[in-house]
Amino acid sequence: MTRRLKFYGWGFEGDGLSDPERDQLLRFVAGKIGVEPHSAPPPPEASEIALRAPRVAPPAALSGVLTADPHERLLHTYGKSFPETVRAFARDFANAPDLVALPANESEVAATLDWATERNVAVVPFGGGSSVVGGVEPAVGDSFAGAVSLDMRNFDRVLEVDPSSRAARIQAGIRGPAIEAALKPHGFALRHYPQSFEHSTLGGWIATRSGGHFATLHTHIDDFVESLRTVTPAGVMESRRLPGSGAGPSPDRLMIGSEGALGAITEAWMRLQGRPRFRADAVFGFPDLFAAARAVRAVSQAGLYPSNLRVIDNAEAGTYGVNAYEESLLVLAFESSDHPVGPWMARATELMADHGGRRHHDEAAALRWRTAFLRMPYARELTVPMGVINDTFETAITWDRLEALHAAVRGATEAALVEATGNSGVVSTRFTHVYPDGPAVYYTFSVKGDPGRLIDQWRIIKARASDALIAAGGTITHHHAVGRDHMPWYRAQRPALFGAALAAAKHALDPAGVMNPGVLTP
Amino acid sequence: MTRRLKFYGWGFEGDGLSDPERDQLLRFVAGKIGVEPHSAPPPPEASEIALRAPRVAPPAALSGVLTADPHERLLHTYGKSFPETVRAFARDFANAPDLVALPANESEVAATLDWATERNVAVVPFGGGSSVVGGVEPAVGDSFAGAVSLDMRNFDRVLEVDPSSRAARIQAGIRGPAIEAALKPHGFALRHYPQSFEHSTLGGWIATRSGGHFATLHTHIDDFVESLRTVTPAGVMESRRLPGSGAGPSPDRLMIGSEGALGAITEAWMRLQGRPRFRADAVFGFPDLFAAARAVRAVSQAGLYPSNLRVIDNAEAGTYGVNAYEESLLVLAFESSDHPVGPWMARATELMADHGGRRHHDEAAALRWRTAFLRMPYARELTVPMGVINDTFETAITWDRLEALHAAVRGATEAALVEATGNSGVVSTRFTHVYPDGPAVYYTFSVKGDPGRLIDQWRIIKARASDALIAAGGTITHHHAVGRDHMPWYRAQRPALFGAALAAAKHALDPAGVMNPGVLTP
Repeated sequence: MTRRLKFYGWGFEGDGLSDPERDQLLRFVAGKIGVEPHSAPPPPEASEIALRAPRVAPPAALSGVLTADPHERLLHTYGKSFPETVRAFARDFANAPDLVALPANESEVAATLDWATERNVAVVPFGGGSSVVGGVEPAVGDSFAGAVSLDMRNFDRVLEVDPSSRAARIQAGIRGPAIEAALKPHGFALRHYPQSFEHSTLGGWIATRSGGHFATLHTHIDDFVESLRTVTPAGVMESRRLPGSGAGPSPDRLMIGSEGALGAITEAWMRLQGRPRFRADAVFGFPDLFAAARAVRAVSQAGLYPSNLRVIDNAEAGTYGVNAYEESLLVLAFESSDHPVGPWMARATELMADHGGRRHHDEAAALRWRTAFLRMPYARELTVPMGVINDTFETAITWDRLEALHAAVRGATEAALVEATGNSGVVSTRFTHVYPDGPAVYYTFSVKGDPGRLIDQWRIIKARASDALIAAGGTITHHHAVGRDHMPWYRAQRPALFGAALAAAKHALDPAGVMNPGVLTP
Repeated sequence: MTRRLKFYGWGFEGDGLSDPERDQLLRFVAGKIGVEPHSAPPPPEASEIALRAPRVAPPAALSGVLTADPHERLLHTYGKSFPETVRAFARDFANAPDLVALPANESEVAATLDWATERNVAVVPFGGGSSVVGGVEPAVGDSFAGAVSLDMRNFDRVLEVDPSSRAARIQAGIRGPAIEAALKPHGFALRHYPQSFEHSTLGGWIATRSGGHFATLHTHIDDFVESLRTVTPAGVMESRRLPGSGAGPSPDRLMIGSEGALGAITEAWMRLQGRPRFRADAVFGFPDLFAAARAVRAVSQAGLYPSNLRVIDNAEAGTYGVNAYEESLLVLAFESSDHPVGPWMARATELMADHGGRRHHDEAAALRWRTAFLRMPYARELTVPMGVINDTFETAITWDRLEALHAAVRGATEAALVEATGNSGVVSTRFTHVYPDGPAVYYTFSVKGDPGRLIDQWRIIKARASDALIAAGGTITHHHAVGRDHMPWYRAQRPALFGAALAAAKHALDPAGVMNPGVLTP
């Protein structure tokens, strides 16, 4: 019954784009990227890959926890970033973990960390493996005796629901759909829907400060965390369930975003939502991104808190076949479990009109975009073998610097596509989340690369875009996390003394430095 | 022109309760506490106090920054806690700082910290000095060569306003009224109004996770911090202005609530509010606190986000002369800079009715309570010399445990009043802030003590109440902070490993351990 996950791409074996989705993608690739459909290398088969012999063996006490099963090792080699997919298709699994840990309980997590600490084995916590920033590849260098991928998938239950406080105690390894299925009979929902929802976990969301469903107000998973339980090499850390506290710096805020570098989150009390009973949706067209931005800013500063307030620019709308590049689209929605949302929508609609928004009466366009967005992760296994370089990156910036940042980043990225490949490609933009003081801006680029040089070419583009983001005052990530790929820019961005404080905190929790080495510290 | 602050009590010299306020207070004290008006010792005069000679002298380079002026030393000896006031009236200024630093810029802060680090002098950052938890008294023990109170009052300006992002760069030592005055011409407000508003500072609010005006949603100052600049003994730490980020654990969340133990906050970019143009207010009566709590819970979980949603229980209403103890009062308000709030108020009013709330058509009662609340800090200089023990403490708890916590805490406090003094006193309760998952619960107690034993008696009550809070699962503070007074319970509450991580982070920023020693760590 259990379906196996692909070890080289998105989703379960057998899942992928439908024929019409594939045709649409190939038309885009041919028309806009200049890559005609051609026969490309098939995905790798496990039998083609020679894994290095494990450098460490499970001790007897952990024989039921640690496995050297080849499929597991393949499955835990990579996340879902562009360069990882290229290497998977190149049958390069040099950094496969020596062993995969599949603990069934906290004692087994602790025993694994104890053994790893003692034996100098790197431990890479693994939720759904959907990292797009090199957060789960055991690329830990040569200073460790080996590397273990710590898969939390057996921590897969909702343990307790507190209907009065609207909170639930949930294990960290549970995936999105299972959370919602378990909460539904209680009349609740977590309503955290990152693009990776189907194949990512609560623990992964918390460890990476995942961005979810709500475009305003509570954008990150951070705000839904009521308390946390984490197993670190130094022991278990558990915070109190509190609706709010002022007792010193928040313990949870140290672990939220810790990316496996401080320990493995095992469970959390999470704040829940009532299931929405009232909704209102609308789509508006604007001549360009900045025109839409002015309307977004007005709504975001009005105290209306729409659940959706997202923009796709002309390029993104065209790329997804939503229109012919003539408008940026703004998707607005309100939802409530308590009351009709008409007055909220009415005021937001006034603000749209005040800022020149043209109301669309056919919302199918937005739906087409949403569907395409959710299916995107499947596209790469088609485009990578065809030599298409395609990736996304994202940031956030205050409103006063938006136009300058966007001009600099789009310009740098477009120039980098040419610099890296000799080809001009496509760069498109959206706002994924917005705040009263600024938007989260998300970029997608696609360009024709040279099949043998894809990673080197990608690296140039990534560096130029990231340099531009940081120079323009943005963050290197709003919700994709830091991983290994963003470390140079994360170091540039964070206050140096915070880096020192974080390294010191890590040393207190992980004295041997075995937890996800190379991520966040040094 | 400049008025001098009292060194033994609240506000400026010459300020205090009006005659009618004084009469109301004396009636309460006589009627409910059993203390008849009598002639009591007058407040201390500076001439009565023999300050210890400074144990350290300012180095030549800091002669313009550090002062041994006796009035400054008196003014920086105490915050505004009950035991501090008792000791001030007892003319006990044993822990007066040796010197007071009044830096005019960051270089002078850094030079002061360098000197203190080198000379092993404790440094206690001081904003408005309104701590009620022993956060500013230089009670640092005997292991330091001396103690300096670092007063940030010269950092008193709004430096920059970004109207597009609705944010302002504000220096840390500016007091509440000056912030609002500076923002008003720009059409903005910070709208953070702790009880101490007039005599507390932005930096103090951030360092103590102050709770403000908004009863729901953005209750603490935390959420309004866009970025921070802090001078630590290891150097300056400055975070980027970002509306949101997912790049590792938040640097700002380490400094928010750091209570001067990691460094001195010098400035912050703060998120602003538009000035309210639309308001709606209502008051509802409920038979008791728990009945009101059910209505509060419903509104807090409805996604309506009222600016006010506070409850005072029957005892508090009676104590303040708002009613004759027959009802708990719920104060509900909405405000907006953007839109009429009628639909919001209408739905919240329905929820009040659903939960048995009786609408009051005279809102004067709530106003009387609010006025009394804001004048409260002046009361203590009248009651302390009369031998009244009076204090407040506060916590937060999830809804499922509210009734058990409240029963335990009120019971323990009432019993402790008798245990400590032989007298029964008055304990009253309110909700100051509420969250979807629970309320912040605030307790006030008053009892007749023995003039010579007030601190010992207070200590018993404080310990019993705090033990009960912690045993019932609450936090030792929702917005008063930890200071020195709450350290035993803070240690019990926080995850032990977080304590270790925080101590390690402190060591990275403050290697000599001179910053506010005894607060937060070890």
